[in-house]
Amino acid sequence: MNIREEVRRMKQAAPEMAASPVEMRNRALERMAAALREHREDILAANAADLAAAESAGVPQAVRKRLRYDDSKMRDSAAGLRELIQLPDPVGKVLLRRELDKGLVLTKVTVPIGVIGVIFEARPDAMVQVASLCIKSGNCAILKGGKETAGTNRVLFSLIHQAAVEAGLPEAALFQAEAHSEIDELLACDDCVDLVIPRGSGKFVRYIMDHTKIPVMGHSSGICHIYVDREADPDKAVPVILDAKTQYPAACNAVETLLIDRGIAESFLPRIVSQLAAAGVAIHGTEEVEILLRRALESGIGAADRDLIGGALQSYDVMQPEDFSREYNDLDLSIRLVDGVREAVEHINRYGSHHTDSILTENAETASYFQQMVDSAGVYWNCSTRFADGYRYGFGAEVGISTGKLHARGPVGLDGLVTYQYRLTGNGDVVGDYAAGRKEFHHRDLPLA
Amino acid sequence: MNIREEVRRMKQAAPEMAASPVEMRNRALERMAAALREHREDILAANAADLAAAESAGVPQAVRKRLRYDDSKMRDSAAGLRELIQLPDPVGKVLLRRELDKGLVLTKVTVPIGVIGVIFEARPDAMVQVASLCIKSGNCAILKGGKETAGTNRVLFSLIHQAAVEAGLPEAALFQAEAHSEIDELLACDDCVDLVIPRGSGKFVRYIMDHTKIPVMGHSSGICHIYVDREADPDKAVPVILDAKTQYPAACNAVETLLIDRGIAESFLPRIVSQLAAAGVAIHGTEEVEILLRRALESGIGAADRDLIGGALQSYDVMQPEDFSREYNDLDLSIRLVDGVREAVEHINRYGSHHTDSILTENAETASYFQQMVDSAGVYWNCSTRFADGYRYGFGAEVGISTGKLHARGPVGLDGLVTYQYRLTGNGDVVGDYAAGRKEFHHRDLPLA
Repeated sequence: MNIREEVRRMKQAAPEMAASPVEMRNRALERMAAALREHREDILAANAADLAAAESAGVPQAVRKRLRYDDSKMRDSAAGLRELIQLPDPVGKVLLRRELDKGLVLTKVTVPIGVIGVIFEARPDAMVQVASLCIKSGNCAILKGGKETAGTNRVLFSLIHQAAVEAGLPEAALFQAEAHSEIDELLACDDCVDLVIPRGSGKFVRYIMDHTKIPVMGHSSGICHIYVDREADPDKAVPVILDAKTQYPAACNAVETLLIDRGIAESFLPRIVSQLAAAGVAIHGTEEVEILLRRALESGIGAADRDLIGGALQSYDVMQPEDFSREYNDLDLSIRLVDGVREAVEHINRYGSHHTDSILTENAETASYFQQMVDSAGVYWNCSTRFADGYRYGFGAEVGISTGKLHARGPVGLDGLVTYQYRLTGNGDVVGDYAAGRKEFHHRDLPLA
Repeated sequence: MNIREEVRRMKQAAPEMAASPVEMRNRALERMAAALREHREDILAANAADLAAAESAGVPQAVRKRLRYDDSKMRDSAAGLRELIQLPDPVGKVLLRRELDKGLVLTKVTVPIGVIGVIFEARPDAMVQVASLCIKSGNCAILKGGKETAGTNRVLFSLIHQAAVEAGLPEAALFQAEAHSEIDELLACDDCVDLVIPRGSGKFVRYIMDHTKIPVMGHSSGICHIYVDREADPDKAVPVILDAKTQYPAACNAVETLLIDRGIAESFLPRIVSQLAAAGVAIHGTEEVEILLRRALESGIGAADRDLIGGALQSYDVMQPEDFSREYNDLDLSIRLVDGVREAVEHINRYGSHHTDSILTENAETASYFQQMVDSAGVYWNCSTRFADGYRYGFGAEVGISTGKLHARGPVGLDGLVTYQYRLTGNGDVVGDYAAGRKEFHHRDLPLA
C-alpha cells in the first residue's frame, strides 16, 4: 500500500481518533510504557544492530551517540509517558461560550488538528516522544524516522502501534513511513495532511519547508543572541554567556552571537573572551572587536588572560555584516559591538532567526524596551537562552520549537497540537430574522464550565 | 520605490507599531472616522468616477453594486470604527505567568503578528475595515484593493494613512499597493511579510495560496452542507434551509448541498423542493432524488406543489459523486440522500470545504455525533449556516473566514491578528545549575494580572 492510500485511510479515521475519550488515549500511553519495559531486550538488540551498521558505514562518533537508545534513554521515555498521562486533556476545552441571542449558543472548543506528519532525523527516542504527544492530543500521525536507526524505529513503532490498538484507538491512526522516497510522497498529500513537523538539521528542515504546501511547524535555524548592555552586571553576565554557549553548544537555543554595548566593551570584552577561550570557544567578530582585544593585550592584564586572549586572536576570524546570520551549533561565537539597545534590537531583528534572544542589564526600562522590540519567540532578561525548552517551561513535553509566528511559537507542547471549532446550537434560527430587524443579537458570555 | 523596499521599511517599523499604546491606535481610528465624515464629498466623487468607468468597461450590474461606496456604506464603516474603538486591546494580554523557579518568571503575552499583506477584490469598504483591524491590533499592513475601485481606494487610503500618522503611528506602518504586478512582488517578500489575507473569488484566493511561501489565511471556497436527519422537525427544517440558501446566496456561508436522511426523504424531499423552487432555487442532485420527486408528482400532492416540483424537474441536473464539491454562490442547490448521520458526516468531510455545516435533528445524541465528527470550522445544530460571521459571533469585526486549521479557524476577528511571545526574566540564571541538579524547577503558575 502506498503512502497516499495510507494517509487517506488515516484522514477517515481522524474524526474517530479525535472523538476518542481521554481515558482511552491515556491507556494507550500506559501500554506503551509497559511495552517498552517488556520488550527491552528486543529494543536494545535492534539498536545495537543499527549502531554496528552505522559504525561500519563510517558514521562519525558524535552522530552515533545520538543514535543510541539505551536503558537511560528508555527511562527518560518512560518518565515522559508518565508525565504526559498526568497532563490534562488538551481536547474538548471550552474556550468561549456565548449566547448570541436567546436559545442560540456559540461554543468554541479545542479539537485535535487531525493528521500530522512527523519527519525526524536520527534520535529514536523522538519516535516515542512524538507518537505519545500525538496520541495524547487525539491526532493521527505518520512517523518517519532517520534511516540510521531504521531497525530500532521499526521495533519501537510496532510496540507503539500495538499499544494504541489494544487501548481501542483506530488501527489507521498511526503509520510508519520507512523509505526516504516516502518523504516526498507524504509532502504531496496536502489534501489529507494538516501539519508537518520536521526535526533535524537546518538544511533538512528547509528542504521540507520548500517542498510542500502543507503548513510546517518548526525551525530551520537557531541564531540566538545575547546583548550585554552598558548597565549589565559583569559578574552575572559572564556565567550566563558561558552557559548559553558551552552548556550544550549543539542545541538550537545555544547563543551564536554576542552583542556588547560600546559603553562597557573595553572592560567587559577582554574578560568574557578570556573566559570563553578558557572554555574552548573560538572567537569570530568584527575588526573593531579584534582591535579592542589587541589593545587589551597591550594593557596591564594578567598573564593567564593574556595567553587566553592571545590564543583566541591567533584563530580570530574577521566577520563582515552578512556573516552574522551564521549558525555554528558548536564552540564558536560571533561578537560585535553596538551603540546601545536600539542598535542591538536592529541587529537581532535583521540577522537573527526569531528564536530566543536575551538582554543582560540592571536597567528595567532598557530590558522592557528590548523585550518589546525584539521580534522573537523568546525574549529574555538576565538569563541564559538555553531555557527555551518545553520541559523547562513546564509543558511536560514538546514536539519542537517553532520560529514561525502563526499558530504556535517557541517551544510547542500539547496546546500546539490542537486547534478549535465553533459549535452553534439553535432551535430553527435563521439569519433573515436578524437582517430584517425582527430579532437582535445580545452577545452574552456564559460561564465556560 | 518598489514594493520590496517599502515592505523592508515596514518590517523595521513593525516593532515600533507593535509597541504603540492602545490610546494611540484608538486615536487613529477616531481620526479615520472623522476623516470619512469630513471628506465625504471627495470619497463619493471618486467612487462615482470608478462606477462610471466600470459601466463603460462593461462591468456587469451585479459586480458594480459591490463597487459602490455610498452614504450607507460610509455609515457602516463609521459604526465599525466606533465598535472597534470600544473593543479591548488584543495586544499585551498575559496568557500565562509561571514561576519556573524562585526568581525566574515566564510570561506568555500576546503581540501583533507584524507585517500583514491584505489583497482584496472589489468592495472599497474592505479597505477601511481591514486597515482599521490591522491598526487596532498593532500590525503593519500592505493594502491592495481591486483595480475597479482604484480611485476610491486611493482617496480612502490617503485618509487612513494620514489619520494613523497624525495619531503618532509610524509613517511606514501602512502602505498601499496599486499595480496588479505588485501582487506577485508582494507574494515574493516571504522574508518580511508574516501573513497574507486574500479576500475575493475562490480562483483569486487559490492563486494567492499557490504563489507564495508566506502563510495565507482565508478560504478559497465555501461548500456548506445541511443534513436533515430522520428525526428532524420538518417545520423547523424548511425555514432554516430556505434561509441558508436564499437569504444571501453569494455568501461563502450559504448552503450548497442538502443531505437528506432516506428515513425522512419521501415526505420531506417534495416539501422542501417545492419551497425552494418557489424561492427560485434550481435543483441539482442524484438520480435517486429525481426518481423520488417524479414519484411525488404521481402521488396525491396539491396542484401548486405539483407545478413547482414539475418545474424544478424540467431543469433538473443529475449529479455524479464528484460533482458534489461544486460551489454555486447562486440560487442553486445540490441534493443527495444518505443513510443516517454517519454517511452524512463522511460526505461532508470528503466533499466539503471545512467551512460550516449544520445538522437538523431533534435527537441530541445524533447532533453531538455530527458536531464531534464533522471536520469543519463551524458545526451547527438546528440553525442556518449563514450565522458563520464575525459580527454575528460578536467579534465586532472580521478580517475574513479561515478554512485552514492552524492559527485561526472560522470567522477571524482581532484575536486572529495577534500571536504571542515568551518573556523570561531572571537574575543571572543558567541552565547548567538545573542540568547538574544544583537547582530544580518548581513550575508554579502565578495570577495573570
